[in-house]
Amino acid sequence: MSRSMRSCRKEQGPEARLMAAMRYSALDGGKRLRPFFTLEAGRLFDADEGQLLRAAAAIECVHTYSLIHDDLPCMDDDDLRRGRPTLHRAYDEATAVLAGDALLTFAFEILADPAAHADPQMRCKLIAGLAKASGAQGMVAGQAADMAGDDIGSDLIAVTRMNRLKTGALINFAVEAGALIGYAGDAERTALSRYAHDVGLAFQMVDDLLDAEGAARDTGKAVGKDRARGKVNFVTVLGVPATKERVGLLADQAKKHLAIFGPRARVLTDAVDFIIERRY
Amino acid sequence: MSRSMRSCRKEQGPEARLMAAMRYSALDGGKRLRPFFTLEAGRLFDADEGQLLRAAAAIECVHTYSLIHDDLPCMDDDDLRRGRPTLHRAYDEATAVLAGDALLTFAFEILADPAAHADPQMRCKLIAGLAKASGAQGMVAGQAADMAGDDIGSDLIAVTRMNRLKTGALINFAVEAGALIGYAGDAERTALSRYAHDVGLAFQMVDDLLDAEGAARDTGKAVGKDRARGKVNFVTVLGVPATKERVGLLADQAKKHLAIFGPRARVLTDAVDFIIERRY
Repeated sequence: MSRSMRSCRKEQGPEARLMAAMRYSALDGGKRLRPFFTLEAGRLFDADEGQLLRAAAAIECVHTYSLIHDDLPCMDDDDLRRGRPTLHRAYDEATAVLAGDALLTFAFEILADPAAHADPQMRCKLIAGLAKASGAQGMVAGQAADMAGDDIGSDLIAVTRMNRLKTGALINFAVEAGALIGYAGDAERTALSRYAHDVGLAFQMVDDLLDAEGAARDTGKAVGKDRARGKVNFVTVLGVPATKERVGLLADQAKKHLAIFGPRARVLTDAVDFIIERRY
Repeated sequence: MSRSMRSCRKEQGPEARLMAAMRYSALDGGKRLRPFFTLEAGRLFDADEGQLLRAAAAIECVHTYSLIHDDLPCMDDDDLRRGRPTLHRAYDEATAVLAGDALLTFAFEILADPAAHADPQMRCKLIAGLAKASGAQGMVAGQAADMAGDDIGSDLIAVTRMNRLKTGALINFAVEAGALIGYAGDAERTALSRYAHDVGLAFQMVDDLLDAEGAARDTGKAVGKDRARGKVNFVTVLGVPATKERVGLLADQAKKHLAIFGPRARVLTDAVDFIIERRY
């Protein structure tokens, strides 16, 4: 009895540690920008909140896994994330790789579950959209391009394309998921897709400005990294003033895309200002 | 023109490298055991070959990603896989992490595509099954337990449980996917599930025997690793003779589970002998 009890405790050890690592990264705060987009896009069409929340959770799992893997020593080798040690610092590298793998897998488990949406056709659409946005034609390709540094080219086209893949694709899908669940019409989906495109780009430019100018205390991560590593980003290509100007133009444009929704889109409109004025 | 051409070539560089890395691991041979199980289980019910092949491809993507990540320096730190350098040796660690991530993601993209199966309910079942078998309650948990070495306990129960998760869960799902696509009845699914359980365990025991006794030339990977690393496996717990005896018992039992299918199950029956007699 005592032997089997001990054995049982021991067997659950590594899995308990894996789950704790997943929670460490997934439940540590963060801006929750992508879930916000899914929820607010869906609310434009009075979509079911439970369905929106599940899709949002799946998307945030993918985002979280990507941060964990991007922080690894063989990638960006970051020690700090959201003001705390990165997962491989708090635990170990193997656990970080596995926790990321498990979070990515869990995202699809969430969406395949009938609780995500009663219509299996919708669940498949969400899964296909999330996989495309996250995989070798989306986010992972963007990270590969980012790792390649200025081998990808150091002009605005190359940097824009890299960011469209690395962060834009998932932000786009976050908005699109809300539109899908809300059964949005074509014109509405197009408007939201353009909004997501402009907001995503502005978001990344602000990230690059914060990396160049921000304080580690505010951002919760090391700053000035990109230039030190020979990475190209909007600020290294355009400089600070031109990047700031473009952020302003993109913000105005993003808001205009929402015009067809009238005052219903107030929260998404206000979010643009939050995103461009953020200090972290 | 020449500038944009150059820029275009460069931008495609890292993604082309990522895709080449995915192909390096996914198309390098291997036993294709899991796809075989899906195809042969489905053929018992005259299931559509195209549907079976797509499910099998998705499962093999997951298996391949797991090998890539397991071989990483922070995990098993293996230099050799299937007689060739492991992916992080042939490319680099970052590319190996990303190629694994992309293959895992691609598996779900394959299954969510209407081409996988006309019925979205079936696609969702396959996705849910694959995610559960692969994630934090399945394969990833098994790898976490394996990494923990003898912290998981060094008795037969602990080792069996670790292997049921690490390799058994995905082998089970490979068989189950064929049964699902073939709309197998309850008794047939149960029989196939028991077959998969016994074959999966025997397969792992043979792996452990090959690690203890095999030649690197035959197995295409380094041997004698588990003991050197303080890892527990069936041979370190039971010894060679008792492990061999159990392989024989499991093989007989696996074949008996197929009795209800009669001669139709000939290929799956013969596969048991292939698996236990293999030298690699």
